[in-house]
Amino acid sequence: MASSTVEPAAPKVLTALPGPRSQAAAAALDASWDARPVQYVVDYDASHGNYLVDVDGNTFLDVYSQIASIPVGYNNARLLAMARSPLAVSVLANRPALGNFPHAGFATALRDGLLRVAPPGHDRVFTAQSGSEANELAFKAAFMLWQRRGAPGSPDLAVLSFTNSFHGRGFGSLSTTRSKAVHKLDIPAFRWPQAPFPRLRYPLDKFAAENAAEEQRCLTAVETIITSWHCPVAAIIVEPIQSEGGDNHASAAFFRGLQAVAQRHGAALIVDEVQTGFGATGRFWAHEHWDLPTPPDMVTFSKKAQCAGYFFGNPALVPDKAYRQFNTWIGDPARILMAQAVIEEILAQDLVAQCRRVGAALYDRLAAVAAEYPALVQNLRGQGYGTYIAFDTVSASSLMSRIRSRGVNIGTCGTNTVRLRPMLIFEEKHIPILVEAIRAALKDEAASS
Amino acid sequence: MASSTVEPAAPKVLTALPGPRSQAAAAALDASWDARPVQYVVDYDASHGNYLVDVDGNTFLDVYSQIASIPVGYNNARLLAMARSPLAVSVLANRPALGNFPHAGFATALRDGLLRVAPPGHDRVFTAQSGSEANELAFKAAFMLWQRRGAPGSPDLAVLSFTNSFHGRGFGSLSTTRSKAVHKLDIPAFRWPQAPFPRLRYPLDKFAAENAAEEQRCLTAVETIITSWHCPVAAIIVEPIQSEGGDNHASAAFFRGLQAVAQRHGAALIVDEVQTGFGATGRFWAHEHWDLPTPPDMVTFSKKAQCAGYFFGNPALVPDKAYRQFNTWIGDPARILMAQAVIEEILAQDLVAQCRRVGAALYDRLAAVAAEYPALVQNLRGQGYGTYIAFDTVSASSLMSRIRSRGVNIGTCGTNTVRLRPMLIFEEKHIPILVEAIRAALKDEAASS
Repeated sequence: MASSTVEPAAPKVLTALPGPRSQAAAAALDASWDARPVQYVVDYDASHGNYLVDVDGNTFLDVYSQIASIPVGYNNARLLAMARSPLAVSVLANRPALGNFPHAGFATALRDGLLRVAPPGHDRVFTAQSGSEANELAFKAAFMLWQRRGAPGSPDLAVLSFTNSFHGRGFGSLSTTRSKAVHKLDIPAFRWPQAPFPRLRYPLDKFAAENAAEEQRCLTAVETIITSWHCPVAAIIVEPIQSEGGDNHASAAFFRGLQAVAQRHGAALIVDEVQTGFGATGRFWAHEHWDLPTPPDMVTFSKKAQCAGYFFGNPALVPDKAYRQFNTWIGDPARILMAQAVIEEILAQDLVAQCRRVGAALYDRLAAVAAEYPALVQNLRGQGYGTYIAFDTVSASSLMSRIRSRGVNIGTCGTNTVRLRPMLIFEEKHIPILVEAIRAALKDEAASS
Repeated sequence: MASSTVEPAAPKVLTALPGPRSQAAAAALDASWDARPVQYVVDYDASHGNYLVDVDGNTFLDVYSQIASIPVGYNNARLLAMARSPLAVSVLANRPALGNFPHAGFATALRDGLLRVAPPGHDRVFTAQSGSEANELAFKAAFMLWQRRGAPGSPDLAVLSFTNSFHGRGFGSLSTTRSKAVHKLDIPAFRWPQAPFPRLRYPLDKFAAENAAEEQRCLTAVETIITSWHCPVAAIIVEPIQSEGGDNHASAAFFRGLQAVAQRHGAALIVDEVQTGFGATGRFWAHEHWDLPTPPDMVTFSKKAQCAGYFFGNPALVPDKAYRQFNTWIGDPARILMAQAVIEEILAQDLVAQCRRVGAALYDRLAAVAAEYPALVQNLRGQGYGTYIAFDTVSASSLMSRIRSRGVNIGTCGTNTVRLRPMLIFEEKHIPILVEAIRAALKDEAASS
């Protein structure tokens, strides 16, 4: 079927959710593949722009975006053209072991793609296939860097992460993930430390002093842990906004303080921008909000990048010998080409600025809704961070179902948080659709409670 | 540029290796990406079938195949057609979070692809993006299965692996990798046990009794370790042929004995077929050589599959709750489609049988060469295992360079082992080209020593 080339004008929900065809398709899949988490089976050909269409014909304004990972809309013309390009076809059919036998076009793909958006101060990248892998590769680089200072060998080294953080589900990355018990249950983990992440009170302007004290408490705890842990803490990993853990923010001052602590103790600062990167906070990288005096040591990415990896600038983070940081694939060149197309689209359409502008308007509209339903919309947050907006409610799953039944595909995080993760092409015209769906859902929620 | 549609008739080496264009391209890449392991920069459009062409126009018969991962040749027509198909374009441009929002064609892609080649006794698959990730997911499934028997919680559980094994480079998989120190140096690892892997003597028919005793020694060690380790051993992971570790074989009887030990102690047996799977040993799965009385618990795959994951049959290996085995991507549907094309090609062309037949002829020719150069070709192995053939020499890197300079791209493994990893489309007509390149290289090697 030809791909849809026009975005629908409005959501349209034809069935109870999930619809009968989605349910049947998921049940068929479940015979050989764990389909219990399936929400809808999707007709991607019928989907376009900000709108997702499921196999029952239900049409959603999608502000969840494949767990925050669709950057520039469904069936984006530039992405389709890249997917059909001879180079994409070639690397899909002739998969290189990139480390040993890269294709002739690889340097160009990096130059015209990922390297154009390297964070300030960074000029090198190591490519990977998932955010989890990217974080683990960053851990390995940090460990090797640490050991350069002393006698190398079989090390007892740690990575510090924060309460409620999510950094992936590999054995190393999962050891730093702290968001939900279900992720870690029954899985062996390294004995690595976790520090408290600030719990800010909202509205921020009302609790400035309390929040500053809370952030100082957490920074002090980080330093205490580093200096008292049974082994060296070679790296600190942190999300600019803890996303799976509940959209928890901290101030720029907190992150500047964190970098200072890391530098005092020689720990690499790894900023996990798997979910925050690629524009959704109104800056290309969320850590650009912080005005750090020096770049973070490594910045990891995945999701909206459509490929994964870590950026860095310090050449000492290149291991002293070849093959120490290596694997067969070292990323997927087909996905790296898609990243190039994503980046070209973001830059050509100035989508980061659009996200900043639209996000500000969206926040204001949601603040008005929050004032209408103060018991059901609390701790509205993300002002100044593009469309990266969230709020707490009484039952996020109940509210999510109500919003979805009005044709807006929305997600949750943390304990009872509703999070917005629209694509970068979300426009002013979509705001009323989203806000009215939320408002109507809140009205029903209030009536039923 | 249009892809080459005809396989060259013979190798052609035009430059010293690597050639000047390869060197210049790698140097340019190295400014932003670690290019030290680059061997050649490749012109994949000019490559075809068994032949790899680099950017200097050097044309190699490729029996290394992107670290054993090209299944059915460069620019295979069926793979190109799949890469150009509307569905591949769609999932490349509209990347689903497969667990939550799979595309309508996903069940069909699994049915017509991966599930057609599920190992005997297996009917379920969990998809992943790399062999390392596949193994770690299998570990997690095994840990969750183990804990079902007792009180779940934060566990101290182990995976047993073997000396010289290679299972990947994530923090969990690397904890079971034992092949080369460079892989593990400076990287924290779980304290998991390693058992000795049999060191067989060749020719096998001459050392039957010694080898049987050696295998029994190793099986006894496995059982001793399991019963004495400080925590439960929830899984055993083993390669049918230890590949990166030196192409080390063990007998079918050994693996049957290993399964019996695993079953006695309730440890899941994970067969790592990342390198051996997909036909190269003359069976679709190498473990089919063993005639196991019951299927192994899990079989992991990657490389020639062009995607990754694990197969299993026991429904208790599906975690008791959704989202315990989960991540954003859960594999890449574009690569899963390529796997489907690979499988269709293998089955349509009966390539596993071809590999078995061609491999037997190749082994005989190499045995003759080994007889000519007994000091330089030792422990020739892989008879009866398709083209999965290897031999030890005095300096594998020196011999590899000499063979490559004659236009055969070949690889090494272990300490001083030359390994053959041709594609499944390697034919009788390629045997003389390969064998004469090896013979000529051996002649030079003998003359220079």
